[in-house]
Amino acid sequence: MPGFREHSDLILAEIGRALAAVDDEQVRILIDAILGSEKVFVVGVGRVLLCLQAFVKRLNHLGIGAWFVGEINEPAIGPRDLLIVGSGSGESVVPLAIARIARQHGARIAHIGSNPQSSMKPLADNFLRIPVSTRLELPGEIPSRQIMTSLFEQCLLILGDAIALEIAERRQVGDIRSLRRFHANLE
Amino acid sequence: MPGFREHSDLILAEIGRALAAVDDEQVRILIDAILGSEKVFVVGVGRVLLCLQAFVKRLNHLGIGAWFVGEINEPAIGPRDLLIVGSGSGESVVPLAIARIARQHGARIAHIGSNPQSSMKPLADNFLRIPVSTRLELPGEIPSRQIMTSLFEQCLLILGDAIALEIAERRQVGDIRSLRRFHANLE
Amino acid sequence: MPGFREHSDLILAEIGRALAAVDDEQVRILIDAILGSEKVFVVGVGRVLLCLQAFVKRLNHLGIGAWFVGEINEPAIGPRDLLIVGSGSGESVVPLAIARIARQHGARIAHIGSNPQSSMKPLADNFLRIPVSTRLELPGEIPSRQIMTSLFEQCLLILGDAIALEIAERRQVGDIRSLRRFHANLE
Amino acid sequence: MPGFREHSDLILAEIGRALAAVDDEQVRILIDAILGSEKVFVVGVGRVLLCLQAFVKRLNHLGIGAWFVGEINEPAIGPRDLLIVGSGSGESVVPLAIARIARQHGARIAHIGSNPQSSMKPLADNFLRIPVSTRLELPGEIPSRQIMTSLFEQCLLILGDAIALEIAERRQVGDIRSLRRFHANLE
Repeated sequence: MPGFREHSDLILAEIGRALAAVDDEQVRILIDAILGSEKVFVVGVGRVLLCLQAFVKRLNHLGIGAWFVGEINEPAIGPRDLLIVGSGSGESVVPLAIARIARQHGARIAHIGSNPQSSMKPLADNFLRIPVSTRLELPGEIPSRQIMTSLFEQCLLILGDAIALEIAERRQVGDIRSLRRFHANLE
Repeated sequence: MPGFREHSDLILAEIGRALAAVDDEQVRILIDAILGSEKVFVVGVGRVLLCLQAFVKRLNHLGIGAWFVGEINEPAIGPRDLLIVGSGSGESVVPLAIARIARQHGARIAHIGSNPQSSMKPLADNFLRIPVSTRLELPGEIPSRQIMTSLFEQCLLILGDAIALEIAERRQVGDIRSLRRFHANLE
Repeated sequence: MPGFREHSDLILAEIGRALAAVDDEQVRILIDAILGSEKVFVVGVGRVLLCLQAFVKRLNHLGIGAWFVGEINEPAIGPRDLLIVGSGSGESVVPLAIARIARQHGARIAHIGSNPQSSMKPLADNFLRIPVSTRLELPGEIPSRQIMTSLFEQCLLILGDAIALEIAERRQVGDIRSLRRFHANLE
Repeated sequence: MPGFREHSDLILAEIGRALAAVDDEQVRILIDAILGSEKVFVVGVGRVLLCLQAFVKRLNHLGIGAWFVGEINEPAIGPRDLLIVGSGSGESVVPLAIARIARQHGARIAHIGSNPQSSMKPLADNFLRIPVSTRLELPGEIPSRQIMTSLFEQCLLILGDAIALEIAERRQVGDIRSLRRFHANLE
């Protein structure tokens, strides 16, 4: 029976294929949207939300005001702000509802997902595709043997960390091994 | 068997007695500490944490930067900041550990609890007593027939809301029925 | 200028008036729904969610399986389960969306709110009114001088604790001062 | 300036090196401890906690009762339970305090970290090393050019997913692409 080595190799190979199929230009547009916004909000469900929260935490370390929707100290969103929606299918009910409200407040909306033709399409100003497999069997999908949408979630975490790394370089953050200024120091 | 009327009357009577025994001067000192700090942090466990989070939410509505320890976008604490520890017994392990770290960073520490002689005493700059009953049977304790430390938690929520009301009045916040500026508008 | 005494008296008087106007029969129906369900879910936004989470915590202490929607270990909902929606206006977008999904899964739905004629009405099997003031100025409303919907949230916490007290009595839970069996013991 | 391709390649290469250096036998022992326990608890701080929460969510999908310390419906820990501590340094104050309490309750303790000689050592029944670089410059460390401890967090997420995959295979969970039975269905 396969053990840890086989499983971690399988997972890393899947992530490698999926991230290699991400469009550089879509990432650049998302980074520009983040850096051009006053406040960044993220919304998602389940493990997708956890990966987005890890991204929000890192953005704050880089001095960028970021919140997940539902956070205790979530401020009001407005026309100079960005909402990042993480939803593979683009059909999750709550993120869709939040995106519609964000639109009414004039915020810019970026969708990170797998399905370019989802209900999110008319709501999003830009779309970043992580082409993991969907029920729709779209062209270019990377198949996965993992549990549920694990591959999407793993790619989302690493995408966020790659974006953070690029922002740190662009801003010439000196010692990225220890961003102390904005980092919690109580635990 | 007693029904809702009897239980809600019992609870309100207990809260009334406990809050009547809170020292006005200790509340005034806490409010001054909040208004004199740059950032406010709160720490607590279980339902006490939930009541403190409700307070943090309201402080943010009033334009006061506040976070609970462990929050995704928690910043660093420093000498111009305040940590509010909510712990009836003053012996909860995690809040004590956090208070010690906050002290090392030079932050001011306020303890809201029931036992004035707890392990929190040497760590706290000021203490606000909600005199609900403890295992120690201290003088002046208000007895309770409720489940566990419900009375402490209820008093904590209402204390926080009374403090928020006073801050709103002191700052002459106009329309306190709708503090829109800092309020989340996505849900 | 009024101090803590005046503010806490004002708050307690408002809570007293609002809870006195709650219909005993509606509380009894909610308690029966909780005790007759396999699993209990709650949904709400902001400080309402915090008060519902305090209720979920207490239900678990009483041996009743309860979760908030969005909790890490949230299970699937089904026809033998109950969803409690906390929403004063009955118009919050996310709770409404969740209630519609719960309905599709055959779950029973209870609404705790202030407006009996809201969008929640066709979705809810039963309604419990906490008659705090709304924008609609409905008959029987209890006015409030507090910040935003604080009065609704305070009543919700105390309502939940009164329900927990009644469940503990009905089940003849012996020592309600220390429900150790289901209580977290790590902090 | 390097873009997304370079950054994601760098991250994946680092993860690949770190996971290749994980000891298969330590993973097997951890899986056996999980499957041999009645309840699984996890504790960690910041982004480490987020990755552990993703693991807890997946364990629940597989029918294994798991909670993070601090979760609303966290039950009591006992001698038949397992606490997994995620801490690279093994010196985080709160996880150490929680581990000590878990020990008093007779629970088994597993530490996932980078430093085999930390303060966690006398508390842990078993240790799983993810050998990312530490301040101590221990033998066998995998260097990282990423922000803070990102590499540890990424490895933790993928380790958890590899473990979940192995548990699903051992238990012959049929359709791992859709584990519906224990999965939240409200969002």
